[in-house]
Amino acid sequence: MYYTRDTIAAISTAMGGALNIIRISGMQAIEIVNNITKKDITEQKSHTTKINYILDRSREEIDEVMITVFHAPKSFTTENVVEITTHGSPYIAQKILTLLVESGARIAEKGEFTLRAFWNGRFDLTQAEAIADLISAQNASMHRIAWQQMKGGLSQKMKALRQDLIHFTALMELELDFAEEEVEFANRTQFIHILKNTISFIEGLLHSFRYGNALKKGVPVVIIGKPNAGKSTLLNALLEEEKAIVSPIPGTTRDVIEDTLTIEEITFRFMDTAGLRTTQDIVEQLGVKRTLEKIQEAEIIIYVCSANPRGSEYEEDIYQAYQNIQVYQKDKKNAQWIILANKADLYPRNEVQSFSNVPVLFVSAKEKQGISALKVLLLNIVRQFLPDFQTDLILTNQRHFDLLFKTQIHLKNALELFHQSVSTELISIDIKHALHYLGQITGDISTEDILADIFTNFCIGK
Amino acid sequence: MYYTRDTIAAISTAMGGALNIIRISGMQAIEIVNNITKKDITEQKSHTTKINYILDRSREEIDEVMITVFHAPKSFTTENVVEITTHGSPYIAQKILTLLVESGARIAEKGEFTLRAFWNGRFDLTQAEAIADLISAQNASMHRIAWQQMKGGLSQKMKALRQDLIHFTALMELELDFAEEEVEFANRTQFIHILKNTISFIEGLLHSFRYGNALKKGVPVVIIGKPNAGKSTLLNALLEEEKAIVSPIPGTTRDVIEDTLTIEEITFRFMDTAGLRTTQDIVEQLGVKRTLEKIQEAEIIIYVCSANPRGSEYEEDIYQAYQNIQVYQKDKKNAQWIILANKADLYPRNEVQSFSNVPVLFVSAKEKQGISALKVLLLNIVRQFLPDFQTDLILTNQRHFDLLFKTQIHLKNALELFHQSVSTELISIDIKHALHYLGQITGDISTEDILADIFTNFCIGK
Repeated sequence: MYYTRDTIAAISTAMGGALNIIRISGMQAIEIVNNITKKDITEQKSHTTKINYILDRSREEIDEVMITVFHAPKSFTTENVVEITTHGSPYIAQKILTLLVESGARIAEKGEFTLRAFWNGRFDLTQAEAIADLISAQNASMHRIAWQQMKGGLSQKMKALRQDLIHFTALMELELDFAEEEVEFANRTQFIHILKNTISFIEGLLHSFRYGNALKKGVPVVIIGKPNAGKSTLLNALLEEEKAIVSPIPGTTRDVIEDTLTIEEITFRFMDTAGLRTTQDIVEQLGVKRTLEKIQEAEIIIYVCSANPRGSEYEEDIYQAYQNIQVYQKDKKNAQWIILANKADLYPRNEVQSFSNVPVLFVSAKEKQGISALKVLLLNIVRQFLPDFQTDLILTNQRHFDLLFKTQIHLKNALELFHQSVSTELISIDIKHALHYLGQITGDISTEDILADIFTNFCIGK
Repeated sequence: MYYTRDTIAAISTAMGGALNIIRISGMQAIEIVNNITKKDITEQKSHTTKINYILDRSREEIDEVMITVFHAPKSFTTENVVEITTHGSPYIAQKILTLLVESGARIAEKGEFTLRAFWNGRFDLTQAEAIADLISAQNASMHRIAWQQMKGGLSQKMKALRQDLIHFTALMELELDFAEEEVEFANRTQFIHILKNTISFIEGLLHSFRYGNALKKGVPVVIIGKPNAGKSTLLNALLEEEKAIVSPIPGTTRDVIEDTLTIEEITFRFMDTAGLRTTQDIVEQLGVKRTLEKIQEAEIIIYVCSANPRGSEYEEDIYQAYQNIQVYQKDKKNAQWIILANKADLYPRNEVQSFSNVPVLFVSAKEKQGISALKVLLLNIVRQFLPDFQTDLILTNQRHFDLLFKTQIHLKNALELFHQSVSTELISIDIKHALHYLGQITGDISTEDILADIFTNFCIGK
């Protein structure tokens, strides 16, 4: 599927801006570009930028461009790389790409520049994947996690784990070679100790995925409550305030995922639900199943009720809300609940601070009172349940999670076998499986299929 | 409105690609960027690119970037310019822009980099405008016209015209100074000769605007005919075939203007119309007014009828079609008409080649027969009425047209006054007006308002 000896070209910028960059990488990069430039670039020094003109096949000028040359191995791909910065015209970009293909380049597959950098040893697979994460990061926390992964945070840990296990296997193999002599080179207690530590470390990583994933896609917050409790007004109040802050970033989430909001470094994914009736008729309600499904997804559940201390037929008060929450909590204990006593502008302030562990917040969604306090509470909750993403390793990638999960099964199996004093030969099979999966994370072990899976998620020109 | 002594910054690429470029220009450009880079760039040589890291205010790394430095005056704006090429993340781009502003840069207005280049004498106003045209050019002909204008084709002509008129005025002024002595320094016949030549040249340019504008927006082609004649099938047949050719250029016209099609170097703008009834009841028809309006816009009108030599009640044949066309032609003589005898697969081929000057083409829109021939015919028609855009000057800009139109009025007036032997003093007023308008085209005379008008049509970062 991928060839490494040819020269690839792609437009590396999105169309519609003032400038475009066309990137060319491969052994023939400089010669191929030189075929279509007015001024010779074969003598142009590495890491320099010069004005030039692109010529079409009839040697007519197409565009005035800046040409930057990078000589192997000091380039992104470690190959010869040329970057052509053009006026931001889709017509010109496409035309130049066509001319490059006519001169011997091939149009790059998605992520193929990064793939080549990986192949040529510039970084491992987790770092390559981090580049895609870095590009799609929409808030400070995701950016931080992607950046750490790109700088090799995860790689180093994976490599260390793998190193330990390889050493471990080597000792076991040695034992097997001398099996007839019944020599025990490795200390079984020590083996078990290393294994337990590894399992516990991976357990932590697997656990972090829940939060990593929430951070990546936005922490899921479900808003529930009786009809007319003010759920949508609350959502609008939350979103409206931040719109001015979100808008300077062009083309970000708002068009794609409805109702996400970034508060400081954390993105929240708010899900509004159909109003709930009293607990008695819940099962009869259509749409309740969907609300319950959303509750299952949620990390935080905001239960909107009324600040009216004696809720009328139409208004559920704080006490009733808490009763209801207890019913739902049977299903979903992990989530953090918040009781939002809405319409606080209408009723004398009730001083209840919390019911058991459920915090109570008085707001007026309509008058936008208490919204800032809600945001602070949301942030505090997330910061509480999150690992310290400034320093801790956090899994955000489904592929890594799946491979670590498989690794863990084999390690646990190995530990079990150790306890049962099963023969080293059998145990070593599990350790080898674990090593295999670990190696796939960093790409020490890779197949075309794995690579294709990963790099087709990249954008063109990366 | 515009300040020239501060340092401006903007994201010069559209969001969504693999790479972004942030451009900074101004006296402090290097120092401002240096505040946020890990490695010092103040010693970095002009026209070199180096790997670097952007640091946030807490000196944490934000991104690994390539930094290119251009020292004044050898840069696009002739000021110090720095380009930061980042990973294509909107979050990172926005973050870096914020850091630059915190370091003392100002976010650039639309087109402000080009405006600075204009101010600093790198090119004149028509060339600056050509950059915007170059970016938006969607086909080879528009690209060619914009390129020639950018290279100074129009400027040179405008300057030559202006030079002639200035020389002219100078001689007239001299005459005025010596008026009492009744000396005639300039030869009136020569004056009239120059004036006539200038007027005739401008006439040609004004005339070219009709085609320039058609090329820029797409040559307007209206498809008319009775209901069920196959107009929409024809449009689909025309568009469908080319979709594969259009699609490699991402984000171009298709989403913006429905039903445009580029055949070789020419873009056509096809307009489908409601089916026409017989001429008798036209006035009664709703929607006919709109069809007639579209006919007014058209350069080419395709009249779709049936290849059936004796059209039934539902089918209008070639002869009837020609009768109808004659009615419409009273209103719209300039357009080129084509009779398209559709459903040619169903009927024995009629050998009519044309009616008077209206060519007749046999096609089957449904079976996609004759579509290529239609395209060749369309191209030939356009090439016939077009000036040679490989070499001739063509006006494409409404501002230039308006100013030349005003220039022309005053020149014609001056010529008239010459013929009437009016005093040189009065004639010179008209010539001065003409000079004023000519000067505005190239920007030798400009006001903030004119500049604001022009540059707000640019994109950000250009």
